[in-house]
Amino acid sequence: MNHDEWVRQELRGLSRSLGFQYTPIKELENRIIKIRGGMEKKDIEGLLVIQKMNLYYLSGTTQEGLLFIPLKGEPLLMIKRELERARVESPVKQTVALKSNREVPLLMQTHIGKIPKTLGLELDVLPVRDYLKFQELFMGTELMDVSSILKETRKTKSSFEINLMRKAGEIGKKVYQQARKILKKGMTEIEFGGLLEAVAKRSGHEGLLRVRSLNYEAYTWHVLSGITGGIVSQSDSPMGGLGLSPAFPVGGSLKKMRAHEPILVDFGTCFHGYQADETRMFSIGKMKQKFIDAYKACKEIHDAVLEETRPGMDCEAIFLKTLRLAEKLGYKDSYLGPSGLQTHFIGHGIGLELNELPFIAQGQPYPLEQGMTFAVEPKIVFPGEGSVGLENTVAVTKNGYEILTPAEQKIFQV
Amino acid sequence: MNHDEWVRQELRGLSRSLGFQYTPIKELENRIIKIRGGMEKKDIEGLLVIQKMNLYYLSGTTQEGLLFIPLKGEPLLMIKRELERARVESPVKQTVALKSNREVPLLMQTHIGKIPKTLGLELDVLPVRDYLKFQELFMGTELMDVSSILKETRKTKSSFEINLMRKAGEIGKKVYQQARKILKKGMTEIEFGGLLEAVAKRSGHEGLLRVRSLNYEAYTWHVLSGITGGIVSQSDSPMGGLGLSPAFPVGGSLKKMRAHEPILVDFGTCFHGYQADETRMFSIGKMKQKFIDAYKACKEIHDAVLEETRPGMDCEAIFLKTLRLAEKLGYKDSYLGPSGLQTHFIGHGIGLELNELPFIAQGQPYPLEQGMTFAVEPKIVFPGEGSVGLENTVAVTKNGYEILTPAEQKIFQV
Repeated sequence: MNHDEWVRQELRGLSRSLGFQYTPIKELENRIIKIRGGMEKKDIEGLLVIQKMNLYYLSGTTQEGLLFIPLKGEPLLMIKRELERARVESPVKQTVALKSNREVPLLMQTHIGKIPKTLGLELDVLPVRDYLKFQELFMGTELMDVSSILKETRKTKSSFEINLMRKAGEIGKKVYQQARKILKKGMTEIEFGGLLEAVAKRSGHEGLLRVRSLNYEAYTWHVLSGITGGIVSQSDSPMGGLGLSPAFPVGGSLKKMRAHEPILVDFGTCFHGYQADETRMFSIGKMKQKFIDAYKACKEIHDAVLEETRPGMDCEAIFLKTLRLAEKLGYKDSYLGPSGLQTHFIGHGIGLELNELPFIAQGQPYPLEQGMTFAVEPKIVFPGEGSVGLENTVAVTKNGYEILTPAEQKIFQV
Repeated sequence: MNHDEWVRQELRGLSRSLGFQYTPIKELENRIIKIRGGMEKKDIEGLLVIQKMNLYYLSGTTQEGLLFIPLKGEPLLMIKRELERARVESPVKQTVALKSNREVPLLMQTHIGKIPKTLGLELDVLPVRDYLKFQELFMGTELMDVSSILKETRKTKSSFEINLMRKAGEIGKKVYQQARKILKKGMTEIEFGGLLEAVAKRSGHEGLLRVRSLNYEAYTWHVLSGITGGIVSQSDSPMGGLGLSPAFPVGGSLKKMRAHEPILVDFGTCFHGYQADETRMFSIGKMKQKFIDAYKACKEIHDAVLEETRPGMDCEAIFLKTLRLAEKLGYKDSYLGPSGLQTHFIGHGIGLELNELPFIAQGQPYPLEQGMTFAVEPKIVFPGEGSVGLENTVAVTKNGYEILTPAEQKIFQV
């Protein structure tokens, strides 16, 4: 059988029968209107989308290729390998084959009618070597950075997007429900993490958590128990754990989980590219009182953030308020990390990537807006002993917030 | 307790008791000698290592930071967050704190005694925005691309490295041994993949498979059954599968596995950052004869590649030989992908990343060398029906090869 014919005839039906949701054309059009608003302000005649998550956001497909968005007229989707599959997945009308990036200017000329005088590229992620090649290809065109336009556009989510995040949150709920049945004394952290992932995958979790930057890696098996919960690592988080080696010094380790230790499970889930991030605490037998108390403080800080979560509230002010509250509760030196290594955020935007706008953090003086989605994650760390925390992903609604991660908020004792 | 003190006193012991292997100083010195050979040829006075896997390769740690290698004298490791942990993990003698990249020139001046006139950067992965900042910081210094020096150095592995890959291969063997017990009729592809990952993690598999380039993502849950095995996707591989959504259109899907279908499991494992990649076939009941025949052809092509695997043999010639063999065996139009979408490689270098040198492929006319490691993966694809394949990771030895993935080579029928 011919592959392309099979794709044209069968792929959509098979995919839909297995739960695929394609991005509606209206949704893409709304996003492109916002993007064009940003382009107009900066006098950018065309924008070339290269990075995979931006491509998905603006075309509906992640097949290898590039999307050109002119300030006016139909966008042009250029696909390198699987053109027919991209045509099934993306509603972009002009979708053509691309053999190599060298053909991009010619395809623009043919399908758009001209080469833009100013061309926007994602300079926050585009490697230098690729950039230099585009400079050669677009002699006479000014190349400009459009990272901020894309980030600004993506920082508020539509109801279509929030619904996908809700589904990711439901997968998380299943994971935490099963977790109490899986957790056993003497099991290693990494085994527990792996089994939780298996539950998530069975429910449609996509496994890869995406982040936006060189060197920053995300993973789901963040299971820390007792002593490993007190260890900081490479990531900008209150604690990183021990991990499995110097090559992967974060997350679950081969340490066995023991009775009465705090067991922290920070588990991200992903549905149709959209992520939900949440943390719950477990213990085998009763958790030591010190950690129960600290967990209660986390819960109080978490609730205090949600009390302030509505359009117009200032992100930095919310963060600073939690500092004061943590101090009042007696956790000044252990809130958000060990003394000297404390992080400076209580929430991070989340969507297609784990490090999106907004950041509920120091140095982020801007207001919350309806449609923003972020994870709020108070954590308290005692080096040499362990850590506790609570995390949920929320959407900012017209007057307040909606929790997208519905797992029960309590310490799961087995 | 003070976190830094705890790390200095306890981390090494805890890590070693849980199986951590630190890179020996002698190993790093040998690597740096090779790097300096490349620097000398290109008149590069200093090299700034930023990308995480290069940093691990040349310092032994992946804590957030930068490594400066002057042409002569002690390297300087600059760590942003977890300095004390980096000091435990890395044998680099000069390891200092770094608050922000702005301090890099000053730290060079202080600890090395001068700013280099020519500075090498990894321009194949460094984002433009970061590069522009380095340009400002190093006015008067010529910035040069050192990607090829790093790739060339990493293309042959030491016995220390090959031993870590052997351990990754042993994890793979455990996965395939358990797989036949886990596989059940009616189970979805993604559930099977998730459960295999859980087995691997329990045995110390690191979960994240690393690749070197924007947009290229690797994952372990590549389970394709029957019809999904005939679907091509974004990745440069013979078949990508259906996946879970347009945001992740590769690997295992929610399709249920049925009797007599070919079930292809392409599973990568990772130990101390070093990867092994292998593929085995499964079936529930007897696999249809068409696929058994195609599997035998894959096995014949696989063995033919290994027959040629020894120092001095030309990578492109090996690839071209497999094309002729596939044609002779009657698979001209299905070898390495469906007609029109066939890939042009039969092997890819593997180590800290999945896309390293050498490539056993068209347009790669260079000889195999002792210490090279690559995955050889003949695959045959029938659109609308399914695919079969066999893959092993091998090291080139003095006179031949060693297979690093010891799982049994056969169709696992359950």
